[in-house]
Amino acid sequence: EQAQQQREDLISGINSFYLIFAGALVFFMQLGFAMLCAGSIREKNVKNVLLWNLLDSAGGAFGFWSLGYAFAYGGDDPTSSQKTFIGNAGFFLTGDTDMEFWFFQFAFACALSSIVAGTIAERCQMMAYLCYSIFLCGFVYPVCAHAFWSANGFLSAFAKEPLWGTGVIDLAGSGPVHMCGGVAALVMALVLGPRRGRFHDDDGNVLEEPKPMGPHSVALQFLGTFALWFGWYGFNPGSTLKIHSAQLGDVASLVAVNTTLGAAAGALSGMFTSTILDERKTGVYTFDTTAAMNGCLTGLVAITAGCATVEPWAGFVIGLVAGWVYLGASALILRLKIDDAVDAIPVHMFGGAWGVLATGLFSNPNRMRLAGYATGNLGWFYEWGRGSGNFTLMGIQICSILFVFGWTVCIFTPFCYVLKFLNWLRIDPIEEEVGMDISRHKGSAYQSEDTNEKAVSELNT
Amino acid sequence: EQAQQQREDLISGINSFYLIFAGALVFFMQLGFAMLCAGSIREKNVKNVLLWNLLDSAGGAFGFWSLGYAFAYGGDDPTSSQKTFIGNAGFFLTGDTDMEFWFFQFAFACALSSIVAGTIAERCQMMAYLCYSIFLCGFVYPVCAHAFWSANGFLSAFAKEPLWGTGVIDLAGSGPVHMCGGVAALVMALVLGPRRGRFHDDDGNVLEEPKPMGPHSVALQFLGTFALWFGWYGFNPGSTLKIHSAQLGDVASLVAVNTTLGAAAGALSGMFTSTILDERKTGVYTFDTTAAMNGCLTGLVAITAGCATVEPWAGFVIGLVAGWVYLGASALILRLKIDDAVDAIPVHMFGGAWGVLATGLFSNPNRMRLAGYATGNLGWFYEWGRGSGNFTLMGIQICSILFVFGWTVCIFTPFCYVLKFLNWLRIDPIEEEVGMDISRHKGSAYQSEDTNEKAVSELNT
Amino acid sequence: EQAQQQREDLISGINSFYLIFAGALVFFMQLGFAMLCAGSIREKNVKNVLLWNLLDSAGGAFGFWSLGYAFAYGGDDPTSSQKTFIGNAGFFLTGDTDMEFWFFQFAFACALSSIVAGTIAERCQMMAYLCYSIFLCGFVYPVCAHAFWSANGFLSAFAKEPLWGTGVIDLAGSGPVHMCGGVAALVMALVLGPRRGRFHDDDGNVLEEPKPMGPHSVALQFLGTFALWFGWYGFNPGSTLKIHSAQLGDVASLVAVNTTLGAAAGALSGMFTSTILDERKTGVYTFDTTAAMNGCLTGLVAITAGCATVEPWAGFVIGLVAGWVYLGASALILRLKIDDAVDAIPVHMFGGAWGVLATGLFSNPNRMRLAGYATGNLGWFYEWGRGSGNFTLMGIQICSILFVFGWTVCIFTPFCYVLKFLNWLRIDPIEEEVGMDISRHKGSAYQSEDTNEKAVSELNT
Repeated sequence: EQAQQQREDLISGINSFYLIFAGALVFFMQLGFAMLCAGSIREKNVKNVLLWNLLDSAGGAFGFWSLGYAFAYGGDDPTSSQKTFIGNAGFFLTGDTDMEFWFFQFAFACALSSIVAGTIAERCQMMAYLCYSIFLCGFVYPVCAHAFWSANGFLSAFAKEPLWGTGVIDLAGSGPVHMCGGVAALVMALVLGPRRGRFHDDDGNVLEEPKPMGPHSVALQFLGTFALWFGWYGFNPGSTLKIHSAQLGDVASLVAVNTTLGAAAGALSGMFTSTILDERKTGVYTFDTTAAMNGCLTGLVAITAGCATVEPWAGFVIGLVAGWVYLGASALILRLKIDDAVDAIPVHMFGGAWGVLATGLFSNPNRMRLAGYATGNLGWFYEWGRGSGNFTLMGIQICSILFVFGWTVCIFTPFCYVLKFLNWLRIDPIEEEVGMDISRHKGSAYQSEDTNEKAVSELNT
Repeated sequence: EQAQQQREDLISGINSFYLIFAGALVFFMQLGFAMLCAGSIREKNVKNVLLWNLLDSAGGAFGFWSLGYAFAYGGDDPTSSQKTFIGNAGFFLTGDTDMEFWFFQFAFACALSSIVAGTIAERCQMMAYLCYSIFLCGFVYPVCAHAFWSANGFLSAFAKEPLWGTGVIDLAGSGPVHMCGGVAALVMALVLGPRRGRFHDDDGNVLEEPKPMGPHSVALQFLGTFALWFGWYGFNPGSTLKIHSAQLGDVASLVAVNTTLGAAAGALSGMFTSTILDERKTGVYTFDTTAAMNGCLTGLVAITAGCATVEPWAGFVIGLVAGWVYLGASALILRLKIDDAVDAIPVHMFGGAWGVLATGLFSNPNRMRLAGYATGNLGWFYEWGRGSGNFTLMGIQICSILFVFGWTVCIFTPFCYVLKFLNWLRIDPIEEEVGMDISRHKGSAYQSEDTNEKAVSELNT
Repeated sequence: EQAQQQREDLISGINSFYLIFAGALVFFMQLGFAMLCAGSIREKNVKNVLLWNLLDSAGGAFGFWSLGYAFAYGGDDPTSSQKTFIGNAGFFLTGDTDMEFWFFQFAFACALSSIVAGTIAERCQMMAYLCYSIFLCGFVYPVCAHAFWSANGFLSAFAKEPLWGTGVIDLAGSGPVHMCGGVAALVMALVLGPRRGRFHDDDGNVLEEPKPMGPHSVALQFLGTFALWFGWYGFNPGSTLKIHSAQLGDVASLVAVNTTLGAAAGALSGMFTSTILDERKTGVYTFDTTAAMNGCLTGLVAITAGCATVEPWAGFVIGLVAGWVYLGASALILRLKIDDAVDAIPVHMFGGAWGVLATGLFSNPNRMRLAGYATGNLGWFYEWGRGSGNFTLMGIQICSILFVFGWTVCIFTPFCYVLKFLNWLRIDPIEEEVGMDISRHKGSAYQSEDTNEKAVSELNT
């Protein structure tokens, strides 16, 4: 008896340890987003986007502490089969809340608003940024998280009576995190419009080719990409939430492996496909760094949903397709004249949707069981394999995608129009020309001085 | 019996694991300090300060291995109520020393000397730097750590008979680490004097406004800030030292949450307060990246002492005030014509002192009990709450601040004057003009080459 | 009974946790290699080497997933005393494979191919890079790893009947990882030849002094160095593979301490020795950042083999000597006109060889026992100490060095010549002149724009 109690005591400590460190790694993704985003844009707005990224960690913490966590998970009742829209307890971390889970989830919420920051860089006002960032972390994301992961969420696989006997499979949030952020970015980009000169010249005529704007530092972009990949080893494996048994250890290990293979396959397929397509047009073999980096990130986004329930080979395939998804989506939004300064819409919205879908295709019965999901409905390919064609799991996954898309568009569009109406959304044309570092942040991000040659020669004598 | 032994065996392994990883995260702060510091100064001394930051990891390891650890914790005797000034066993890690604790504490010692590096950048000789860095890690810091944390320290809460029944509450070192480093930085800055041209023109007349010197790269500054925030999740949660029970897990989780809220509140209050103050003067809304970053760091420094014993709301309040402390202190030292190249004095000295003080105000009885502190004397506000006005804990905290300040000033001032007397302290004016990268490090930190346009056109044909 | 089972279950989870996080830290070294390498070269090839570093994570994952892991550890049979050359099961992670161990080892394989990337930067074709990177991760490294670490490896200390009763002591891979990578870099550098203009002028006359080529950003170099040092705390402590007992915890802690002291000593001896040597020649005290950084890395490489079996003082000595090894080897390869863009050959090949050797000198009986090695043959100095002069362990270590060198040279040389013969190896002279960022990657890594002064003045009015 006492031994059992001691055991549980120890286990609780270990799981706290696990979530704290995984949460720290997820927080590290803020560094990654900041560097990727800063590297991707023009030099004149570097301070601006870096500040945004710091503030959305800070604002995200405030928003998720005050409201977000309570809306997402407050008052969860696993014993009840009732579904709720949002939670309603634990505002400001009052009551008996699970601190390590708050910490882990706070880092998720921050990631979400960093996704949007990239897309709308170089033309959005600070005020709008702050408003939407608190709104996203405090309300939009929590509703998604509640639906997917709360014990009373209507899509949740962890509910007492999950939707259609199974509920959605999305371990770490291709849907509620990445796709939600990507959709918000899309809405913002549409309402805000493109950067001046991106698609049109000064007289308003359409340019033949969109004018490239950035990246001003590919080194920062790669720094960010590596940092994100690294942080994903907290994001995905940490999402098992517990690690106190061989089974949980096996699941977390599979997650780490799938995360790796998804990223790798995405990078390879993104880059080589772009090389082949380019060669057909120009006859020269070139290797596009952006395609490699964003292919990699799209692979990571896509494997996030199914990393615990698909086999490694399927993880690789999901990443492979993710690379193509990225290239196609990126070309599509460019054709639609949607200006996305860091290609976050293709990476997170399209990649996230593909990830949720792919989980419905590839989820393996053994892996599902180990990861604690109901196994009444399998991934579609496995249903085929046993000759059933049962589309239930796929159906749930598709509903989940539609829900995230619908919810985010419906709530975020009016919000953006309010900001626009208040004139809080877009900066002045002259400010855009000069850059926000000078207009709002007291000067450029980089300062060089010429060497005092006279002093140098004096020194040498 | 055997089960109990097996349990302890397992626990010991887990706690080693915990400290090794937490220590690695603390070590990561060296990367953060290096990048923050390099970004904050002028281009011509970048190699110099980066090298300093590497050398203080190396020199700190040497100093803490040879002497520091033995002085800080060597020969601790928890069964004795005797107080000692310094320890006296375990030099060079001989004897039965606790390796993982050495590793964790080594990283703390390095952080301390990196704090000073920032302040005195661009004008201090390498020799002085090396001497003070070994002196700090090998002697000044260990004495502080001994007083605060050793079982025989006179301020220690972990002593058999702690001071006034309670001892100082400083979980992770707002006092012995940050404030000690900040005071050392202040002493150095005073003895060394400001950079040439910072407050005076060439004829020695006082400038109306101090001349801005840097930052040369805001991207590196933000990189450093994010890295420090991340590393703090090793610094603070790791300072519970153990994680083998639900209670320890809860404490460590609270620490992670408070660390987050302190940082967030500091960033928000630092930046917005500076925005409001600026707007009053100039009529334009600007957003100061330095105020945001240093506000954030001051929040982190301030929450370090009380992160295990205050409620989340208090953590947020401590961070909020920390932002103001930073702005006030930064304006103050500028007015006093103290030249601090990275504002480490406001962040670490003032922030650290505020943190120790705030712990005396906000420490909550429940949290204190969980974290293993005596609960005879509570935070002053809680004493008020129960109508007592007992000032004991506050008194201890104030004494601790005075001790750190007094000790560091008294031991470090003569040390600096000796260096000055030996002419090892300050570089030549001509070297200062040229920059130390050219004078001492074989050339500039950045090298650009012009593209060979002829070759490009040849390539394209 | 049941308690014992529960205990093992818990232990299994904890060890998975340990390897996942250690593996993530090792993966972080990819960021370090990328930044170090990018900083060390000329601006015109920055995108190229960064892309290489991303692709070798991706290609390495593919190579190690498809073939490498199976060759290295597939079908290990600890009960058999048979020695095998390579493994033969678990291709594509099929069968009952140990996912967390795959993940940890995948990160090692990536590190290996990043080592080579640095050396051959600025002149090697993308095609060659991809081929060798998959070849290294998929075949060359696995054979080394099998020999050193598999239960059926002929050098392995973990075999049922290890070589000469002991087997090689190389905890984390000074030999199979670093030296193997360094030798591959040497072979590539020899077959590929130096960068144009490095040792000869345009007419083919030998230059008096090699022309310096880079570093273009010392800030990136330091960023990479700190990141690598940090990642090493996953590389070395993680190599205990388990952490579920006091004994394992003690070993891992010693490893962390030795890693620290090795790095510190390497940095100090590398830099100060170079300062003294320079002063003798020029009469001026200069402090070489490259010597400090590479001394530090060589210290880390060297301590990697013996970090679990030597005392801290020996760890410091090993690092100290590593600094000299670096300086000597670096001067040597320069004299031999071998062009190594990041000095990876001195750091990893020479440093790795010294590390394996030093382990044969300094391995301490107590530490060997704790770390689970047979103690029939001790480090040579300890054999001396007990008056025996038994050279067995040293002999094994020397054989291991010869094996890694011989194997890598024999298999990699023909491979490189095949690439050369296919004309896949070296880029065109004109491409080399222009830089690969323009010729193959669509433009420079950095883009600056001039500020629109007219708009600025308009803004200010």
